[in-house]
Amino acid sequence: MEKVVSRRNIKFLLYEVFGVEDLTKYEYFEDHSQETFDMIIDTAYKLGMDFMYPVFQEMDANPPEYVDGIVKTHPIVKTTMRDFGRDGWINAPMAYEYGGQQIPQVIQNVIQFIFTASNYSLGAYVSLTRGAADLIVHHGSQEQKDLYLEKMFAGEWQGTMALTEPDAGSSLSDIKTSAEDTGEGYYKIKGQKIFISAGDTDAVDNTIHMMLGRIKGAPAGVKGISLFIVPKYRIKDNGDLEYNDVFCAGIEHKLGYKGSPICQLSMGDEGDCRGYLVGEANKGLAYMFQMMNEKRIGVGIGATGKATAAYYAALEYANQRLQGRPLNEKDPNSPQIPIIKHADVKRMLLFQRAICEGALSLALQNAKYRDLVKVGEDAEKFDLISDLMIPVVKTYPSEMGILTTSTAIQCLGGYGFCRDFPVEQYYRDIRIDTLHEGTTGVQGQDLLGRKVTMKGGKAYQLAMEEVRKTIEEAASIDELKAYAAQLKDAQQVFSDVTDYLLAIKETGDKEKFQADASVYLEMAGVLFIGWQWLLQAVVAIKALPTAIDVDKNFYQGKLMTCQYFFKYEMPKLESLGKTLKTSDGLTVAMNAALFED
Amino acid sequence: MEKVVSRRNIKFLLYEVFGVEDLTKYEYFEDHSQETFDMIIDTAYKLGMDFMYPVFQEMDANPPEYVDGIVKTHPIVKTTMRDFGRDGWINAPMAYEYGGQQIPQVIQNVIQFIFTASNYSLGAYVSLTRGAADLIVHHGSQEQKDLYLEKMFAGEWQGTMALTEPDAGSSLSDIKTSAEDTGEGYYKIKGQKIFISAGDTDAVDNTIHMMLGRIKGAPAGVKGISLFIVPKYRIKDNGDLEYNDVFCAGIEHKLGYKGSPICQLSMGDEGDCRGYLVGEANKGLAYMFQMMNEKRIGVGIGATGKATAAYYAALEYANQRLQGRPLNEKDPNSPQIPIIKHADVKRMLLFQRAICEGALSLALQNAKYRDLVKVGEDAEKFDLISDLMIPVVKTYPSEMGILTTSTAIQCLGGYGFCRDFPVEQYYRDIRIDTLHEGTTGVQGQDLLGRKVTMKGGKAYQLAMEEVRKTIEEAASIDELKAYAAQLKDAQQVFSDVTDYLLAIKETGDKEKFQADASVYLEMAGVLFIGWQWLLQAVVAIKALPTAIDVDKNFYQGKLMTCQYFFKYEMPKLESLGKTLKTSDGLTVAMNAALFED
Repeated sequence: MEKVVSRRNIKFLLYEVFGVEDLTKYEYFEDHSQETFDMIIDTAYKLGMDFMYPVFQEMDANPPEYVDGIVKTHPIVKTTMRDFGRDGWINAPMAYEYGGQQIPQVIQNVIQFIFTASNYSLGAYVSLTRGAADLIVHHGSQEQKDLYLEKMFAGEWQGTMALTEPDAGSSLSDIKTSAEDTGEGYYKIKGQKIFISAGDTDAVDNTIHMMLGRIKGAPAGVKGISLFIVPKYRIKDNGDLEYNDVFCAGIEHKLGYKGSPICQLSMGDEGDCRGYLVGEANKGLAYMFQMMNEKRIGVGIGATGKATAAYYAALEYANQRLQGRPLNEKDPNSPQIPIIKHADVKRMLLFQRAICEGALSLALQNAKYRDLVKVGEDAEKFDLISDLMIPVVKTYPSEMGILTTSTAIQCLGGYGFCRDFPVEQYYRDIRIDTLHEGTTGVQGQDLLGRKVTMKGGKAYQLAMEEVRKTIEEAASIDELKAYAAQLKDAQQVFSDVTDYLLAIKETGDKEKFQADASVYLEMAGVLFIGWQWLLQAVVAIKALPTAIDVDKNFYQGKLMTCQYFFKYEMPKLESLGKTLKTSDGLTVAMNAALFED
Repeated sequence: MEKVVSRRNIKFLLYEVFGVEDLTKYEYFEDHSQETFDMIIDTAYKLGMDFMYPVFQEMDANPPEYVDGIVKTHPIVKTTMRDFGRDGWINAPMAYEYGGQQIPQVIQNVIQFIFTASNYSLGAYVSLTRGAADLIVHHGSQEQKDLYLEKMFAGEWQGTMALTEPDAGSSLSDIKTSAEDTGEGYYKIKGQKIFISAGDTDAVDNTIHMMLGRIKGAPAGVKGISLFIVPKYRIKDNGDLEYNDVFCAGIEHKLGYKGSPICQLSMGDEGDCRGYLVGEANKGLAYMFQMMNEKRIGVGIGATGKATAAYYAALEYANQRLQGRPLNEKDPNSPQIPIIKHADVKRMLLFQRAICEGALSLALQNAKYRDLVKVGEDAEKFDLISDLMIPVVKTYPSEMGILTTSTAIQCLGGYGFCRDFPVEQYYRDIRIDTLHEGTTGVQGQDLLGRKVTMKGGKAYQLAMEEVRKTIEEAASIDELKAYAAQLKDAQQVFSDVTDYLLAIKETGDKEKFQADASVYLEMAGVLFIGWQWLLQAVVAIKALPTAIDVDKNFYQGKLMTCQYFFKYEMPKLESLGKTLKTSDGLTVAMNAALFED
């Protein structure tokens, strides 16, 4: 592959659209500069292309094997964890006191984008470890920090999030894993976890599970869930490791994401599994959800990465493959042309580009908001907007990425279906993203049932205000007036639908109010990505007159892709609006008997 | 699995909607009756569930192996070919003179639907053999019929369609395989073919390739393509088989459809490959396209079958899986409910059902038209309508099936991603259907560039008239008035868009006229499936008052699914119409340099 992401586009978004170099004026980021950001990005890109991508298909073809309670993973996992640990890729965004480099989230997300585009499965070991460590950083005791963080950041120990159980998937309130206080500084853990990514691997010396469980006597439901550190090997006082009765009972055989094992874990089979409470009892879900937000953003970034790599694979093929002739050419002896000259192929490439670059833009927009929260700049406002946006940041590229990777296959014709080319793997790998860290259904409920209404609708109002600002700016530019008007209309439709749904909420019928939350989420996605395209178009149109030749093509390409989005994607918003305003409780009224025949 | 298709629905469509028992009044079908149809369908269903489905996942997990020029396929392929041959499943629709049973195409398509839902890869060997034999029946000489048909219909010899070459995929005019007349009743063949389904298998004694090639000195392009029978082993005068220099050079490793090999073939490496001309020289593409129409219908049926099986897997899971509580239920100690009670899950099931049953209905509508052509009932009219519909019959379930099988995965949550359940395989298997037998892009060009305009737009007018009749009938039924009005508006939008595009055609700019043909095809799909739902709703609403209890549920379920289609799918037509009327030649104007950065 020539490339898996465009660095030109990354830098366009970072500096020209979002001006993230301005973040370095805040104390937390003051040691950084655009140059250090660029260096980090270029190094990440080199790592991605030279180290991670070359084993992308190989790891898929040779997935982890489960042998007698041990999960054997590809040898490169061990190398990666150690090297990435040594070179600071695991803890890059952490504070200096944790050995981190205090890079902004927006840069961290770009790194994640590059790594996931290069090799999603391999990147997962790294990001899972960072996520688990992050929980300890935020909620762990000093002792816990001292015990676990160094080894995790060094890539010697793997981290996991251990939430799901056989009877508790989307319904986390049904977690059953039990914890009994021994009074000796630890809890006795007993239970089963499933679908635990990197839940066991022979690549590391230890696996640290950040596990949700229920202390005996705790209240039912979400209010009785606590967070524990449950290591595979616990650390004895002399520093030696001792087996902690965390048994990997098996791994799943999956459609994609095959380079990373998804494990079934059994704790306390021998009555000797110890868990260490993190923070306060019964507050586990709140702690976990802070990390969950980061993971959901990460899923969105990962989906965007995979979809982007698939797009570039399709683009490369379309430039090289000769097939057919222009429709106006009748002479069968004339040479065949590269398929990128066929309008239908260009349409398929523009579709992929519009989704991928739109989704990346939204993710980085969100990351910038979170960086502003971190430095205390209008923190409440940006925190609220980001909170509202996260279900979209997660879901839009995950759902649309199914279509874009499918379209990448389509660009390659029959070859797209074959393993000689990487696109079929992206299609399989991306399919997990609407499922893990909260399904699309769960994200829809989160957006409509919680985020839109929280604080009296303040987050919603603030986010709409941001969209409106972009519309106003674009409306003052001749070439963008029409798009500005189109987005303004779309926002009005979205607002009408929101009001319509909130009126149902007022009746107290929660079922009916949230029945089409997934459709509402889809609609929000179109609006937000349209916003991001208009934002990019404003920058591109201003830059165009004075740009050098190669940049002229880049900006012109941006404007054409924006045009694509407004002509081919934006009209969907109106039809989704119609559906939402006329679905009449159909899906509530439907019942199981009517599916029978 | 409890079931892969609904026999109740099949019989509803056959007898209640399309009244296909009336076909038995024509001489060609006069030996049949509704009872023989039912017997055939029930036997096919039993074969599907008891024989084909049990090896569905096994064939995927153990795909064909290529060993020294031989393709070793699963042992059940041999059994299937022989048993299905013996029992008349290969030649069921053929005339009595060929040992067939003269069953209508609509019944044949139902059998295909059941077989593909049960095990697509296994069914492919059978249908490919039938298709190849069909070409010999229609265009072969008596000698060729005598030599090949018996063994093919007996399942002793496999049939294939050998069109594609490395430089001739969508562009068939670039076929290079050469044929040199020896003057001894055969041609010397030399060339390469790729992507040949069942192109080699050790399950049979011989493989008969229906191969496109170019006779030396023939005109360039499509006008110089001839059709040949090229057997792997040619038949000597004494009946012995002799190797015919058709070498399988390898097989593809694929995303899905793994139970059937897709082969690379090399003919004439040793200068000893003989091909036997079928029909007249240089008319090969016309012959092949007759068969291609059947194959395209078959792809649509196959996609509908896979999508339907995935839907029933999701439905079964949704009925059994307990997770979560009603949104209005606050008590965490209350029991979890089957997920089919969640509105979002019902929405996902209704989506699958609306697409699958709508697509099946359209396919059977088309089959009935073709049966009427066969018996000479208003033959020109129904031939034209069917011709126009075929790109939709092929593409709608193939494209939408990607989404419905993806939605089936979504219904199962994380389990959907795992190989313990069959849905991920349907998702992989169905992905070939937008690619083979003409990609979606090719189908779009066929619909807009050829079918809509042929015979002065007569096919288009006739098809629209059929839709209009259904609208008028529905408009006279109170409960369906609103849907009738909605479909009428949709048809008007479709008509406006068609006029808009035809006006571009008048300017002579073929590129611009056909640039968005794929989008137009998508739009036609929504219109036709809406028509089929209205047609079904008319029958259901009339049957409801006097129905027995179990049938009441069935008809009520039909009406709810119709409602779903009109609320959630039909609005898409309008947004597609907007795109088509404002896409402004964007994809023609876009160029490769603007994709660079």
